[in-house]
Amino acid sequence: MSTTSPLYEGKAKSLYTTDREGILVQRFKDSATAFNGRKFATLPGKGALNNRISSILFRLLRESGIDSHYVDTRNTRDMGVRAVRIVPLEVVVRNVVAGSLSTRLGLDEGVALRHPIVELYYKRDDLGDPMICMDHAAVMQLATDAELQQLKRMALEVNDVLQPLWASAELTLVDFKLEFGRTDSGLLLADEISPDTSRLWDRTDPSRRMDKDVFRRDLGDLVETYTEVLRRLLTVAAAHDPGELTDAPSDR
Amino acid sequence: MSTTSPLYEGKAKSLYTTDREGILVQRFKDSATAFNGRKFATLPGKGALNNRISSILFRLLRESGIDSHYVDTRNTRDMGVRAVRIVPLEVVVRNVVAGSLSTRLGLDEGVALRHPIVELYYKRDDLGDPMICMDHAAVMQLATDAELQQLKRMALEVNDVLQPLWASAELTLVDFKLEFGRTDSGLLLADEISPDTSRLWDRTDPSRRMDKDVFRRDLGDLVETYTEVLRRLLTVAAAHDPGELTDAPSDR
Repeated sequence: MSTTSPLYEGKAKSLYTTDREGILVQRFKDSATAFNGRKFATLPGKGALNNRISSILFRLLRESGIDSHYVDTRNTRDMGVRAVRIVPLEVVVRNVVAGSLSTRLGLDEGVALRHPIVELYYKRDDLGDPMICMDHAAVMQLATDAELQQLKRMALEVNDVLQPLWASAELTLVDFKLEFGRTDSGLLLADEISPDTSRLWDRTDPSRRMDKDVFRRDLGDLVETYTEVLRRLLTVAAAHDPGELTDAPSDR
Repeated sequence: MSTTSPLYEGKAKSLYTTDREGILVQRFKDSATAFNGRKFATLPGKGALNNRISSILFRLLRESGIDSHYVDTRNTRDMGVRAVRIVPLEVVVRNVVAGSLSTRLGLDEGVALRHPIVELYYKRDDLGDPMICMDHAAVMQLATDAELQQLKRMALEVNDVLQPLWASAELTLVDFKLEFGRTDSGLLLADEISPDTSRLWDRTDPSRRMDKDVFRRDLGDLVETYTEVLRRLLTVAAAHDPGELTDAPSDR
């Protein structure tokens, strides 16, 4: 594995081929980046935490009927995933105003939205991943109309599962970003779901950010924060599947 | 009229009350502004040209079954309009890539879109009129879901009328901005439709811009350009209604 060069090298993850047809390894790196790569750091332990959290969430979502590219958790930093063709969109679900939504709409951070909203961002580093609307995605043929409707529906379904789950872990799911991939049998949830891709605020003290904003805004120790997120998630995930979910992944 | 202070003072137009209940005067000013007011000038004749062009277009749209706030053309710079409550959205229809769409999507100016698209901008000078999507407008209650669907449908209907009209005038309707107002009996097209709010490119030489980009980008004499747009519009509008449309408005 580690001797092979990656099929794809991202900012926080890399993809490697395996000897199984249609199966890849998604390796979670310890690098943290923000502001379209202008801020970066290496934070030992971050990759393993995101792999662990993301694995648990993908398994819980599958139990709720939402399929993903997740196959298995190979070792502390490697996740086995199905090979998919990534849709070049970031699909963001928002429950509470934060970040760019606050700037765009002139609303204070922390204002709860009347209902969850779904945003699309065009995955183009060179353009700064601009926000686009359904019409843009359709006219550029980034996805078909049917796929766009499905992406939106699936994103809201993921929110319906994750929002109460994180609430049980005493965290408010403010917003999160999803990516999707195409397979011959349709769209699958892909990428990762972690505090790198979700805004999580402590329910008792919303000023306590438990996500990548800790890094973006220099609010504390990111690895300690993610460790606390994992600890809380394990507490609530154990209720769903005490056997598998609380086990640390073995090095296979 | 001119002794009254305006009910509303905008960058390019002012609104005045009249002695008729529910009827206002929309006065077209000679001021030109761009880049959210950072660039401005006074261009004598511009107001009258936009009043004339906008009056013709509102009348032609009404003939095609698309109603607006337009009541009559009072004099060279005053348009009689119905009082409406403006929806705080700019509704933009695009047929060809230009301006902010080019920057946002990384597409070259001049690329024809596969089909027209409708964009929404939140009318908020202090935020720089940001682009928003349907979900944002709905969650902020800027308009109801039904109104948003109607705005989008009406905007595309306006495009279906104006695109061939401008084509007959040897101009490509690249994009344009509409505003809508609420009345007790529903939504009406409001504001103006002019080379201030539409991108018009000469069909033979697309590099010849016949709209406010002449001012934005210092491409020539704006009043001369708008005079040529009016001349071409009158030629084609005469075919629709030779009596009213080619007459200069009388000073009533």
